[in-house]
Amino acid sequence: MSSVHSCTKALASLQRPRQLQHAWRLQSNMANNTFSTSSIMAGNRAIVYNTNGDPARVLSAFSFPELPPPPPDTVNIRFLLAPINPADINVIEGVYPMKPEPDVFLSQAKDHPLFVGGNEGLGKVIDVGEGVVGLQKDDWVVMTKAQSGTWSSAKNVALSDVLKVPKQDLSEAQAATITVNPPTAYNMLHDFAQLVKGDWIVQNGANSAVGQAVIQIAAAKGYKTINFIRDRYGVELLKQHLKLLGATHVVAYDELTEKSLRAKVKTWTGGKDIRLGLNCVSGNTTTLMARLLGNNAHLVSYGAMSKEPLSLPTSLFIFKNLACHGFWQSRWYSDKSLEKRQELLKTLTALMREGKLQGPDYEVLTIGGTESDDSASAKIRDLAARLGQGMYGKKVLLKVEETVT
Amino acid sequence: MSSVHSCTKALASLQRPRQLQHAWRLQSNMANNTFSTSSIMAGNRAIVYNTNGDPARVLSAFSFPELPPPPPDTVNIRFLLAPINPADINVIEGVYPMKPEPDVFLSQAKDHPLFVGGNEGLGKVIDVGEGVVGLQKDDWVVMTKAQSGTWSSAKNVALSDVLKVPKQDLSEAQAATITVNPPTAYNMLHDFAQLVKGDWIVQNGANSAVGQAVIQIAAAKGYKTINFIRDRYGVELLKQHLKLLGATHVVAYDELTEKSLRAKVKTWTGGKDIRLGLNCVSGNTTTLMARLLGNNAHLVSYGAMSKEPLSLPTSLFIFKNLACHGFWQSRWYSDKSLEKRQELLKTLTALMREGKLQGPDYEVLTIGGTESDDSASAKIRDLAARLGQGMYGKKVLLKVEETVT
Repeated sequence: MSSVHSCTKALASLQRPRQLQHAWRLQSNMANNTFSTSSIMAGNRAIVYNTNGDPARVLSAFSFPELPPPPPDTVNIRFLLAPINPADINVIEGVYPMKPEPDVFLSQAKDHPLFVGGNEGLGKVIDVGEGVVGLQKDDWVVMTKAQSGTWSSAKNVALSDVLKVPKQDLSEAQAATITVNPPTAYNMLHDFAQLVKGDWIVQNGANSAVGQAVIQIAAAKGYKTINFIRDRYGVELLKQHLKLLGATHVVAYDELTEKSLRAKVKTWTGGKDIRLGLNCVSGNTTTLMARLLGNNAHLVSYGAMSKEPLSLPTSLFIFKNLACHGFWQSRWYSDKSLEKRQELLKTLTALMREGKLQGPDYEVLTIGGTESDDSASAKIRDLAARLGQGMYGKKVLLKVEETVT
Repeated sequence: MSSVHSCTKALASLQRPRQLQHAWRLQSNMANNTFSTSSIMAGNRAIVYNTNGDPARVLSAFSFPELPPPPPDTVNIRFLLAPINPADINVIEGVYPMKPEPDVFLSQAKDHPLFVGGNEGLGKVIDVGEGVVGLQKDDWVVMTKAQSGTWSSAKNVALSDVLKVPKQDLSEAQAATITVNPPTAYNMLHDFAQLVKGDWIVQNGANSAVGQAVIQIAAAKGYKTINFIRDRYGVELLKQHLKLLGATHVVAYDELTEKSLRAKVKTWTGGKDIRLGLNCVSGNTTTLMARLLGNNAHLVSYGAMSKEPLSLPTSLFIFKNLACHGFWQSRWYSDKSLEKRQELLKTLTALMREGKLQGPDYEVLTIGGTESDDSASAKIRDLAARLGQGMYGKKVLLKVEETVT
């Protein structure tokens, strides 16, 4: 991100939300030096960065005072849990195509653009602005605006950027991770091929959070899944786990190079055309997976973990009428009406309540309220470094507590 | 093609059309040895093969008697001209996904499956069977059934496998080449992106028969085209020729690797997203061409002259919402109603009559009526060998004359 570009954007967003500028002035009695990364103040804390780069280097914890009362049509929320998704890392690195806007409240405090990490998260309403209808104190909300800056203890948000989540029978972890991976899985199964009960799909990266959601949603809809995973230590246990989630077959990528696999797949499907493939890997194994697809199939990509391109014989397009698409949940949210978003959330929470869609395997990293910003910064940088090495296994959910002195 | 497979298919098709078997019995007074490749008989001739392989080796000329009168709901036609398209070569080689059926009439004569080459061609009705409505003697017809075996002087065809072409202001060459390349160009421009006047498209292989049709149809519709061609001797003349056809810009592939091209394209389009790309090449230059496409674009492939796969960064799919498709005119004909086929033919002939869609650059290879089958075979094998070396430049149209002794 060039500094000119980010300054322009910062300026633009500093000039836009007048309510927030007003809100900020309420705090003008506070001296600028009350904001610091080396000590904490009673109030809040966020995980921030002011320049793109390696998260293990550029992230720091930053404490800030209580939020002012919410301006009209906004609410103040406390974040209960916020995941660290792979895309969040790319955003901080500056290699993601969607750039966040600087946080208005914090940027004014520091007098230069400051970005809060995190795209997804579960918030609890703590204060309601004038004119707000449909939300009240203690309600749960999730973000539908991308790059909302969820790695924070609290935030003021516009009513139009959040959706209320029914709490009933939903865990905090499920609600905190409901806006990216489960809808990606649901929409990819829904928006491309017109599948009916008994139809078959293939997917790779089947052990990813999206992959596991695909397995469960497909099973709930009566679709059969052929799931590819990397061979690894304990692969049999993993296969068993995915089958318990509802996977019909789980296959290691190595088997894709075996000629016998095609015959095996044909036996499984009874020769029925596989009409949907889901890809988050690309590279050679995806070329081989695409060859398993039948006529008039759709191959939908939502990731490229191999960092290789998607390379396909042109004949698959011409003679088998293969169509290739990409899926990005952020675009889906931008394109769809509020009603469609609410409908999707309702569908997913219903699946969760019925026990048909489990949350991810996760662990919580708590940034405690009494820790110093220095200690909290070290903690988050250490985590970022470990995540950067890959193979973390579990989804990490951040819990940034309110600060106490 | 395995012999078991082709024999089964031959058997199936020999058993199906009872009228033709009946028709054949009318000829039963002829001795089997009147069919020969070393002498000719008064009547007809076809370019045939009985096994897949190199056309320069497996093709031969084969003379056969006059057709019996057409059975009900069929017509006898004389072929006036029939092109040799690249796909015809692949069919003979056995590497094309659509296999022809053996010619019933000729296979019975030889007592083993015999295939007549050619998919496309212009026929003139010479005899009309009982119950035929809408076609009369001297009408022009084109084939909509794939692999009709058009490299022949005459053929009996079902009414449902041909479409009448209005002769008015149409050359024989235009009509003989109207069912494959011009509709491929027209449908690719029409079926994927919703383009309006002033929109931009990119294509490679712009000098191919389809490419030239794309340029002309796009110009007629008011779409702007950026056309990629191979650098070659006389490339400036070729650029000039394509511009005269209506190309907005013509660019050599070499320029695709230049960073300045993106800026140049942006100047040309005024920053407008290019929403359609047409590909008959694949490989690296197509990857680069795809990067010129804007958001929500469609890349439609109808060939792969580089024999390389189509390889694209996954990010184009995810973040720019690129969709990739294939186009195959044979599938279009199978999928669409008779009305849709007639409508398309009407649209294309109208463009031709208005001078907006020229026929291809062509030369005619005549197999004369007095030549021996041996001489005719040598002629067609020699041509196949020359076509196999590529870079022929002009479309070759076959004219197989009726034989005279």
